Amino acid sequence: MKKIYLDYAATTPMDPLVKKAITPYFSEKFGNPSSLHSFGQEAMAAIDESREKIAKTVNANFREIIFTGSATESNNIALRGIIKSIKYQVLNIKHPRIIISAIEHESILETCRDLEREGVEIIYLPVNKHGIVDLKKLKESLNEQTILVSIMYANNEIGTIQPIADISKIINQFKEKNFSIYPLFHTDAVQAFQFLDCDVKKLSVDLMTLSAHKIYGPKGVGCLYVKSLNPKSYILNPFITGGGQEFGLRSGTENVAGIVGFAKAIELTVKNCGKEIKRISNLAGYFWKEIKKKYPSAKINGTLDNKLPHILNIYFPDQNAQDLLIKLDLNGVAVSSGSACSARATKPSHVLKAIGLPNKKIKNSLRFSFGKFTTKEEINKAIKIIRKVI
Amino acid sequence: MKKIYLDYAATTPMDPLVKKAITPYFSEKFGNPSSLHSFGQEAMAAIDESREKIAKTVNANFREIIFTGSATESNNIALRGIIKSIKYQVLNIKHPRIIISAIEHESILETCRDLEREGVEIIYLPVNKHGIVDLKKLKESLNEQTILVSIMYANNEIGTIQPIADISKIINQFKEKNFSIYPLFHTDAVQAFQFLDCDVKKLSVDLMTLSAHKIYGPKGVGCLYVKSLNPKSYILNPFITGGGQEFGLRSGTENVAGIVGFAKAIELTVKNCGKEIKRISNLAGYFWKEIKKKYPSAKINGTLDNKLPHILNIYFPDQNAQDLLIKLDLNGVAVSSGSACSARATKPSHVLKAIGLPNKKIKNSLRFSFGKFTTKEEINKAIKIIRKVI
Repeated sequence: MKKIYLDYAATTPMDPLVKKAITPYFSEKFGNPSSLHSFGQEAMAAIDESREKIAKTVNANFREIIFTGSATESNNIALRGIIKSIKYQVLNIKHPRIIISAIEHESILETCRDLEREGVEIIYLPVNKHGIVDLKKLKESLNEQTILVSIMYANNEIGTIQPIADISKIINQFKEKNFSIYPLFHTDAVQAFQFLDCDVKKLSVDLMTLSAHKIYGPKGVGCLYVKSLNPKSYILNPFITGGGQEFGLRSGTENVAGIVGFAKAIELTVKNCGKEIKRISNLAGYFWKEIKKKYPSAKINGTLDNKLPHILNIYFPDQNAQDLLIKLDLNGVAVSSGSACSARATKPSHVLKAIGLPNKKIKNSLRFSFGKFTTKEEINKAIKIIRKVI
Repeated sequence: MKKIYLDYAATTPMDPLVKKAITPYFSEKFGNPSSLHSFGQEAMAAIDESREKIAKTVNANFREIIFTGSATESNNIALRGIIKSIKYQVLNIKHPRIIISAIEHESILETCRDLEREGVEIIYLPVNKHGIVDLKKLKESLNEQTILVSIMYANNEIGTIQPIADISKIINQFKEKNFSIYPLFHTDAVQAFQFLDCDVKKLSVDLMTLSAHKIYGPKGVGCLYVKSLNPKSYILNPFITGGGQEFGLRSGTENVAGIVGFAKAIELTVKNCGKEIKRISNLAGYFWKEIKKKYPSAKINGTLDNKLPHILNIYFPDQNAQDLLIKLDLNGVAVSSGSACSARATKPSHVLKAIGLPNKKIKNSLRFSFGKFTTKEEINKAIKIIRKVI
């Protein structure tokens, strides 16, 4: 039985072209990028080229792209790095405040909880039933102690896209009024990247997180865009220190193959984006229509209007999602009952809670997510199987 | 011209068997280990198996092996994680002290310098001309504020092996006398692993760092052995937080292929260790004999008696190492003028300085390091080329 993977928001298989791109970096071009000889130069050239490619894609400078070991690490560097940097500056910030949305990824939420223990004040912005962050509350929450606003570009569980431009505008107006570079604005664009414009200047963000394995690249590599105010200094301090790789912001021998694969994945994503948005929107629309035919009482969690095309979070009355997930899995269909990162904990989704779903409805909700290898044939088969097991 | 790589201490090419082991995890077994469905279970099983394999090799428990993005990250977690953990304990430690050797890797040294800024006291133990740490000074430096001793098992620039058992004994005697679990003992075994016994119980260490890319595994993955005092708690706090992977100590989607490759590299290393020690010792011995024939004034930095077999750090009077390195590179021989991590900075080696070499001699020193793909034919060719360019 060929299994049907409908969990592309959790992770994706590597694209064959990515695989082809990284293979030479295992045993042939294997040098340590910090080595001065030709093996090292070759490896460093591969990293430079990858960095340049990604920087151009998001309209950043070469030195503004920092490779990391995961998007989670990127998010940690953003938050912890800025908290750390203000310790060593002469600033009138005694009780730093960070503002985030209530539906951020665990790597933001847990890091904020950790920072709270260290005395950082965290404001959790509520979202409406569609998952859109409360802009009025954002405006009210900004004060002179606010050093960072971190709001994800699009949500990983329900796909809702945030009004990043409006958020930037609010932040920039506050900054202008206060003659301050703070608060900085970070966005986790891990899910958004493959479908939305991630031009950092248009978005007016200071920091942006991307991940390779969500876009058909390798696991174990992410990056962080870090706006540089001048070529010699960064807005954050590193917390993985050592040999000074990644312009001093993230030490450790570079994952050369991973970085090359990440750049290739980004290139392919951008190339196919227009076509894929349409194709996947159609597939998801078709899937939802078929589900509704059979289960008129099923409901979309979040919104259908302003979301990533590949994610459908569906509430099935009278169907326990965990049971359904297992039954589907036994019949060869892989879906998710939440984000992968908290799935094993099997606690009710904080995202569905934040958009106002009661626990009972949360427990009856499943996330279906589609990707570039999803076919109409697979969708038809999956629908048949869903009909069979419900 | 087939190039000759004599810089195995900087990094190694991936073993073809490692490559074979990791390839299925790119596009076939690509699940997110945190996903509950069969794709996720398959990925998690691969990680579990890899963890079990490594744990057994170093005589640790399953939950005591934490996968990271690099040995540098492992070293950072060890140092920063312990400093962080004592913040949340009721301890009489107001001014924590960490003791390290003066010849640690940059990831230990720079992290200690960073921690100094946060008020941690760092004691840098001197070493003798062979690179052996001063045990008397260690004894004198231990006090009730000392929470950690971190001394590398074997040095990456000169290969000197530290008397880890003697160091453990000193630490354990101090702990017994003080009825304390502190100081903990961490060793960076990145270079040592392929040739020395890394049984954590025999070494009596609480923390140990290993790296994949130094033993023919992939770049971008390391691990940290963390002794667990009881199954529910760890001696350190995480600083990459999020989904709670790696028993809560290192969040972020696991680099499944990297982890599988790491375990395979460990398996192969252990299997071939006995044979390789002999073979590489012979090759290195032969190389050094030939060098001495031609350049009687050349000298070994460190020691020939108590060092890793694959590293030779050689002082060539009247030869600028940087120039020599470039000339050799142009003739197809890759060597190093220090550790790769600080090579680009081209500052004089802190290791050679610590063993008492004046700057002039440091500038005239090169590191040659051999590996499992090094042949006698390559050595002969390299010697010819060295004769030609000097």
